[in-house]
Amino acid sequence: MHDRIVLSHGSGGEMTQQLIREVFLHHFNNEWLCGLSDSAMLSNGSGRTVFTTDSFVVDPLFFPGGDIGKLAVCGTVNDLAVTGAIPAYLSAGFILEEGLTLETLHRIAASMAEEARHAGVQIVTGDTKVVHRGKADGVFINTSGIGFLPAGRADLSNTAGIRPGDRIIVNGHLGEHGVAVLSAREELEVASQVHSDCASLNALIDQMCQVSGKIRFMRDLTRGGLATVLCEVTDHADFGLYLLEDKMPVGEAVRGICEMLGMDPLYMANEGKLVAIVDPADADDLLGAMHEHPLGANAQVIGQVAGQHPGQVVMETQVGGRRIIEPLTGEQLPRIC
Amino acid sequence: MHDRIVLSHGSGGEMTQQLIREVFLHHFNNEWLCGLSDSAMLSNGSGRTVFTTDSFVVDPLFFPGGDIGKLAVCGTVNDLAVTGAIPAYLSAGFILEEGLTLETLHRIAASMAEEARHAGVQIVTGDTKVVHRGKADGVFINTSGIGFLPAGRADLSNTAGIRPGDRIIVNGHLGEHGVAVLSAREELEVASQVHSDCASLNALIDQMCQVSGKIRFMRDLTRGGLATVLCEVTDHADFGLYLLEDKMPVGEAVRGICEMLGMDPLYMANEGKLVAIVDPADADDLLGAMHEHPLGANAQVIGQVAGQHPGQVVMETQVGGRRIIEPLTGEQLPRIC
Repeated sequence: MHDRIVLSHGSGGEMTQQLIREVFLHHFNNEWLCGLSDSAMLSNGSGRTVFTTDSFVVDPLFFPGGDIGKLAVCGTVNDLAVTGAIPAYLSAGFILEEGLTLETLHRIAASMAEEARHAGVQIVTGDTKVVHRGKADGVFINTSGIGFLPAGRADLSNTAGIRPGDRIIVNGHLGEHGVAVLSAREELEVASQVHSDCASLNALIDQMCQVSGKIRFMRDLTRGGLATVLCEVTDHADFGLYLLEDKMPVGEAVRGICEMLGMDPLYMANEGKLVAIVDPADADDLLGAMHEHPLGANAQVIGQVAGQHPGQVVMETQVGGRRIIEPLTGEQLPRIC
Repeated sequence: MHDRIVLSHGSGGEMTQQLIREVFLHHFNNEWLCGLSDSAMLSNGSGRTVFTTDSFVVDPLFFPGGDIGKLAVCGTVNDLAVTGAIPAYLSAGFILEEGLTLETLHRIAASMAEEARHAGVQIVTGDTKVVHRGKADGVFINTSGIGFLPAGRADLSNTAGIRPGDRIIVNGHLGEHGVAVLSAREELEVASQVHSDCASLNALIDQMCQVSGKIRFMRDLTRGGLATVLCEVTDHADFGLYLLEDKMPVGEAVRGICEMLGMDPLYMANEGKLVAIVDPADADDLLGAMHEHPLGANAQVIGQVAGQHPGQVVMETQVGGRRIIEPLTGEQLPRIC
């Protein structure tokens, strides 16, 4: 391991996992953190409370389809919602750089408020710090969130229920957030038609949970993309995941840009996408319900859980070959969220 | 109001209040935020859950008596505890600057873990982001926290119960955190004997709540010091606060340094101090109980609530004069927490 922090420690890939294990788990070790999910499931008397936190450092602050404020609400709402919980309350902690315009801060706060209303959550507590010019980069936002798991609903962040034969579903086109942020950095004029998929998924997920009681696992796809989540799911697992390349939902523009740049949409960041692993008996009903929701219109079964290849994610390519999907090792796009 | 963020927006004083009202309350307006307390009191079926957030940007990361990690745990534990709640769960969100040494991060995480154990709270969820060199300053930490208010215990963050005649108590010497951080910046060699008072107050507060059911209000004293909290309490109130200068607990070293620099200990930051406003009938018992706890050994009644001077904090000086304590207007010490 490096002896200094490098950008890859923030990639969401292998080096982030290593940092978490070797530093944070080492010191903070407890039953909740050990699960390494994005949220903690807390028991308090009758109900189950879910608690999560996320800091946002996206560069630039505004990009096609969103901004750091919308992202900060969607990201934390989604971390709660993929556990099966109903997101309820958010905190908002701002670190502001001296010299930021108030107009920018107003735009960001208005965007957070609009997305919070849309998602049906309340921003109930906050904090503001200011640092000297050059000691931060405009605005960093932390949102932490509390949600409540309805009685009788399983904790979907747990991989223990996944079995061979289960279907793997994603709710739409991959890689849009990553490409949109890239384009906003003006490195890529051609990409300006791609908008970030940044969206709160809680309404879609609640609908999915009402249609199927046999969703085994769910996770939102953020930095590191679909590949990173699936590699985490199979890490030390006694099953493998088998994907079909021709079922991967990737839009034309994203596909073209990724080909041009030698990037892989499977590793590109999303902010309004989830993967669900579901009992095969419920897969069709679930897909049908997802197609009725605007955020699930392009939902697709992309593969299934396999007894073979334990611990691996294997993709059958369009030309009939097989490719092992490896965990992200470096940093694809720093400060994507 | 300025059209750009200035350091005073982070002071905890008047400009911070103005920023919160004009930007955050404007956009996020709801019943919880309107209270402008440091925590939100949430109802969920049987119990009451308290939720709070705080970002830490202290410079330097290590100072006599503490470091950013210890501070990040104590600060959020205290924000929960002063409501009367039992702090239970913390999140930890890290923003790391590329180039930070792993050794530094280990020291900070170890310090957080030690303070969490000491305070009896669990760090249950976390997040890590990395930004390019020069886009942050070493480490920024957000801790959010959840606590539970025991049945029958009043919400102590509410000022509505304060009445004329109530006694004002602080638990010890003022200004030590501010002076310790100043000294660590090496602007003040002479101050090196002053250690930050950085401490988790939840055990002391729980003991206080068990001795007296007539604590009307409690708040921890952080950036902006005692003066800032008392000015917030009296803002638009129908009572005044009457303080006795010769009862102010200020240590010799802090007093000397403040005199030398023309600073006022009443405005200096603390990280292990609270002010409690209590029914006069319980003041002696409460003070006795506080004196038995190490963090309350120097507790003192510093004044009382008055029917006169509504909306004002008035201090009777040692020479017999009267001084109005005004809210902090500028920035006394940037990045003190």
